[in-house]
Amino acid sequence: MKKLINTPETVVADALRGMAAAHRELAVDVESGIVTRAAGTVAGKVGILSGGGSGHEPLHAGFVGPGMLDAAVAGPVFTSPVPDRIGRATAAVDAGAGVLHIVKNYTGDVLNFGMAAEDAVDDGIQVETVVVDDDVAVARGEGAGRRGTGATLFVEKLAGALADSGGTLAEVTALARRTNERSRSFGVALSSCTTPANGAPNFRLGEREMEIGVGIHGEPGRRRAELTTAAETAEVMLDAILEDLPQADGDPVILLVNGLGATPPIELYVVRAEVERILAERGIAIARCLVGNYVTSLDMAGCTLTLCRADEQMLRMWDAPVHTPSLRWGA
Amino acid sequence: MKKLINTPETVVADALRGMAAAHRELAVDVESGIVTRAAGTVAGKVGILSGGGSGHEPLHAGFVGPGMLDAAVAGPVFTSPVPDRIGRATAAVDAGAGVLHIVKNYTGDVLNFGMAAEDAVDDGIQVETVVVDDDVAVARGEGAGRRGTGATLFVEKLAGALADSGGTLAEVTALARRTNERSRSFGVALSSCTTPANGAPNFRLGEREMEIGVGIHGEPGRRRAELTTAAETAEVMLDAILEDLPQADGDPVILLVNGLGATPPIELYVVRAEVERILAERGIAIARCLVGNYVTSLDMAGCTLTLCRADEQMLRMWDAPVHTPSLRWGA
Repeated sequence: MKKLINTPETVVADALRGMAAAHRELAVDVESGIVTRAAGTVAGKVGILSGGGSGHEPLHAGFVGPGMLDAAVAGPVFTSPVPDRIGRATAAVDAGAGVLHIVKNYTGDVLNFGMAAEDAVDDGIQVETVVVDDDVAVARGEGAGRRGTGATLFVEKLAGALADSGGTLAEVTALARRTNERSRSFGVALSSCTTPANGAPNFRLGEREMEIGVGIHGEPGRRRAELTTAAETAEVMLDAILEDLPQADGDPVILLVNGLGATPPIELYVVRAEVERILAERGIAIARCLVGNYVTSLDMAGCTLTLCRADEQMLRMWDAPVHTPSLRWGA
Repeated sequence: MKKLINTPETVVADALRGMAAAHRELAVDVESGIVTRAAGTVAGKVGILSGGGSGHEPLHAGFVGPGMLDAAVAGPVFTSPVPDRIGRATAAVDAGAGVLHIVKNYTGDVLNFGMAAEDAVDDGIQVETVVVDDDVAVARGEGAGRRGTGATLFVEKLAGALADSGGTLAEVTALARRTNERSRSFGVALSSCTTPANGAPNFRLGEREMEIGVGIHGEPGRRRAELTTAAETAEVMLDAILEDLPQADGDPVILLVNGLGATPPIELYVVRAEVERILAERGIAIARCLVGNYVTSLDMAGCTLTLCRADEQMLRMWDAPVHTPSLRWGA
């Protein structure tokens, strides 16, 4: 295992110490993994909380700040944080208008956020939950259902913007649900990731092999294929996404070309060019896009594509100012 | 070779097509590799131009925009653009107040930017040049001198801000020189990069080996060492930097913790935490910092650290608004 870390046991706490050092606008509780805005809550605003296992940075803590999350809870690598910590974060971000939990669809996260939500409700906090399940590599209804991947960023951005502009818990929840329902993702990998605890790759690929339909927790893809061009790879990914993407009256899409941690910008931009070509051929307009490492899987080489059919409100919320460590625009 | 590309021959053009698709605020001439602001030049403003071989994205094209570069010229992977193209970009960004060339200290870049500058001067354009040479892994005066790495981002940001706020060519050049003189960098690698044309790693490292003192063009480091902790790695890097960093009356530093292309955010934040500890021990205040993949070396795993002793003007220019694809803050 080759990583710039100290020990597998301390990697999450060490990275959180680094986030605390780098971003004074965050309040980082290294012990509990809870990251909040240093400026505290905004009275009367709906609290937006997300979290999950570590290893997907900058998701989620890198998206804490005005216009996006109020808090993120970081668990161990690829492991959900425990309910107690989610509950403490929920209480910390409740400013009287309730709290939205944005949860990626993984068994542990759904269970732990669910328990925390129940406890919070018992304590008099209104909690709504949106489970993100955008990964079309998993058939609908298969096992625990579709995994939550890149659409999480979209849900966090749009819900965060609406909450910051005064949306009620019901309104913010509805927008978050709609964003998830209108989003689809698909991922490919050129290499496995290596978890610090395992110390060896989760799977091994030959020099001319790639995995098609990977998740973000080191699981192999749905099938193995021969390594091909970026053009053909993008076709495969978009075929899978477009087969399932809602038509939504031909609304344009918000696009995320996301690196899984070890894919350099030059390759992501090559993929971006192919997506442009393919969506133009299929008559789908790209209204907004992001290219970069936003939802990673440790040191996996590969990328995911996420498309979200965006209506007018969604585009307005996308364009709204955001001031977080890893997503930042507007006044 | 495992990359998300189409062919080695088209990788730079393909990536530029992707940049054009992703960033409508840029004008991308794919054929010539010249990237300018779509809004055009600002009359009377000093033009800020950089460029060099491709493979270091988002440097330089990702830093074109208000508050930073007016244009970037992209050559083939790890190969300087030809003087003719640099000359065309120089003419394109001249708005009557002259043009600053920001050049990383590599033989080809220095030669080609130099020839382009001479021709531009012959055509009546004022041109000043700042050669960035911040890499302390190369002894001062050794061979072609110190390589230009992470400090290039600092020079581009600060010179760009001063030009946007009305600085003259002389003032902008002086600030760019001072920024370079006050900056030092050092890099380590856990893996080689693979250039698309070669198709195989430039060097091979064992499972427990790392390279100390690497550049950003796939050259091996100054020595090979046993893989160690992030804490010890950061010590080695900062020892080399601090031995040579100007005291500058104890001015605080701007810090860049930079990934070389295949190092995920979680590891960069672990390194950031160690830098915080070490600089605190040595009495050096960190005034500002960036953590991320900004000056890459294709798909190399590893990182560079850059420290710049920042005076008041430099901090003010750092904080000034910037609106580029990869660096963005302020109103």
